[in-house]
Amino acid sequence: MEQGSDTLAMSESNAVLIGRKPVMNYVLACITLFHGGAKQVSIKARGKSISCAIDVTEVVRRKFMPDVKIKKINIGTDQLSNEGVTEGLTNVSSIEIILER
Amino acid sequence: MEQGSDTLAMSESNAVLIGRKPVMNYVLACITLFHGGAKQVSIKARGKSISCAIDVTEVVRRKFMPDVKIKKINIGTDQLSNEGVTEGLTNVSSIEIILER
Repeated sequence: MEQGSDTLAMSESNAVLIGRKPVMNYVLACITLFHGGAKQVSIKARGKSISCAIDVTEVVRRKFMPDVKIKKINIGTDQLSNEGVTEGLTNVSSIEIILER
Repeated sequence: MEQGSDTLAMSESNAVLIGRKPVMNYVLACITLFHGGAKQVSIKARGKSISCAIDVTEVVRRKFMPDVKIKKINIGTDQLSNEGVTEGLTNVSSIEIILER
């Protein structure tokens, strides 16, 4: 992982992490951040939540804030350590969508 | 097919549509296209298959073809007409990942 980029620092502070709640919860979180003065919001998700991250992005852009643009989409792999039945590391895909106003 | 837009023509012809099969099937499809001389392969998915599209991209890049780069990631919304229990149009998120060798 590279450090030292402003983009990373910005996105860290205004990150919305997608989990298993309804899409609208995360949409609201994004809108709240933008209304609070954020210029950039980064939406992060892993594994099966990735499709939810894209739903959130599309709802924010199409229904609520047409002035928001997608600045960048990063995809990657995270290694998680299993502590359950199987041992070792599992690879999980991840996505980061950076929205800009 | 229109002439003059090479990128579009290329990606249309070399598309891998992600469905419900195992990830490796789609990985093989991508590798086969690249080995057949394709310079670009576009991976397309909708709804819950989106996370699988990212898995495929990561496996192709990390395990098999490190020289493949992600040229562009597009996300969007497709409207599908329901013919089942509910009527009307449903919005489904979609993704297109364009890989370039």
